[in-house]
Amino acid sequence: MNLLLLEDGDFIAADRVRLDGRRLTHLHEVHRAESGDTLRVGRLGGEMGGGQLLQLDANSAELQVSFDQPPPAKLPLTLLLALPRPKMLKRVLQSVAAMGVPRLILLNSYRVEKSFWQTPFLEPAAIREQLILGLEQARDTVLPEVIVEKRFKPFVEDRLPQLAAGTLGLVGHPGLYPACPRAVEQPVTLAIGPEGGWIPYEVDKLAEAGLQPVQLGERILRVETAVTALLARLF
Amino acid sequence: MNLLLLEDGDFIAADRVRLDGRRLTHLHEVHRAESGDTLRVGRLGGEMGGGQLLQLDANSAELQVSFDQPPPAKLPLTLLLALPRPKMLKRVLQSVAAMGVPRLILLNSYRVEKSFWQTPFLEPAAIREQLILGLEQARDTVLPEVIVEKRFKPFVEDRLPQLAAGTLGLVGHPGLYPACPRAVEQPVTLAIGPEGGWIPYEVDKLAEAGLQPVQLGERILRVETAVTALLARLF
Repeated sequence: MNLLLLEDGDFIAADRVRLDGRRLTHLHEVHRAESGDTLRVGRLGGEMGGGQLLQLDANSAELQVSFDQPPPAKLPLTLLLALPRPKMLKRVLQSVAAMGVPRLILLNSYRVEKSFWQTPFLEPAAIREQLILGLEQARDTVLPEVIVEKRFKPFVEDRLPQLAAGTLGLVGHPGLYPACPRAVEQPVTLAIGPEGGWIPYEVDKLAEAGLQPVQLGERILRVETAVTALLARLF
Repeated sequence: MNLLLLEDGDFIAADRVRLDGRRLTHLHEVHRAESGDTLRVGRLGGEMGGGQLLQLDANSAELQVSFDQPPPAKLPLTLLLALPRPKMLKRVLQSVAAMGVPRLILLNSYRVEKSFWQTPFLEPAAIREQLILGLEQARDTVLPEVIVEKRFKPFVEDRLPQLAAGTLGLVGHPGLYPACPRAVEQPVTLAIGPEGGWIPYEVDKLAEAGLQPVQLGERILRVETAVTALLARLF
């Protein structure tokens, strides 16, 4: 936790917050914080700044806070991701928030196991929890938008063409395709497939919607690694 | 497991292997393989090719194998990593093997908790297990060399200058430093710090040994994400 992220409910005055639960435990156990310490803070959806610990005990912490700094810029990106397996989903949500992806669309694909759609980690509160961990890691305050699309064909036919219009549309896909471009200047719509990859029909449909396949070399990367590698190369 | 990685002990003839244990379970449960199926195989430290399942039951599998393809090239890189916490270490070892790092040096740093050096995941057999998972993921056969250096100063003063000689020496470090270069052509020696970063003394010592700080932007990334992002940008 490199940023103590504050929500409206934490405020007991305009410049004062009271914390308990996970963040309190973290202050004790990881920061080993004491009264008087100053910490980086951010207001969820708002600015970042500093907080001074006025009081800290086993039950709560109180800080005086001020905000004077905008959060870091987001990437000019819409990321489409075939729904990963639940354990991977948690980590990918953290990575996506940490790297500054502003919009993530979790999409079905032929190779997404049906059981993955049943995971409790897809509940909005569970998604939000992982995104917050990513924001705290990277020092950002703005939650990415996460959209869940359980039907591939209607989404890709009816909605994706407008979403991708005016952007560089790319599909990360192993094979004899051009190498993923580097340091692009324009907004990007990027689709990353499931373990085992998109099936050819899906690659064709994504191409019809304006997303062209690009590759990262012959090594097959895990989804989480592929997301990070593609974003680091593109931006 | 995108490659069935075979070791000398698996061979019961020059072109035939018998498997049990983890790989057999994987064939049953993930590949749902049946007699007659063909699979990608690789010989640890050697070539890759194909294998046909001659027989498969609850106790063992037999394959007829042939090899005709070299493994993918490694990156021209020596990676120095402050020893991560044990859970992260496992994933980093997998990533490092998957991304094609040929040599990894696990190094002490002021912000590495002493207890991290006690983890059983630093045992050679445990390191090897994670590296193999990374090779199987990425389809590679060549184990990276992993060197454990528990003392920062003697290593950085006495051995690092020679290791880094003739390479582009870089330290990934947040701050007012030049941006990490992209698509470099020469060999690289790259050092990545612990959670919380290198301390200034360590940055100075690494610079004396020929490694200059570079940054990836204002977001603080987890070690595993930083490794992937830096490698994807550099190569």
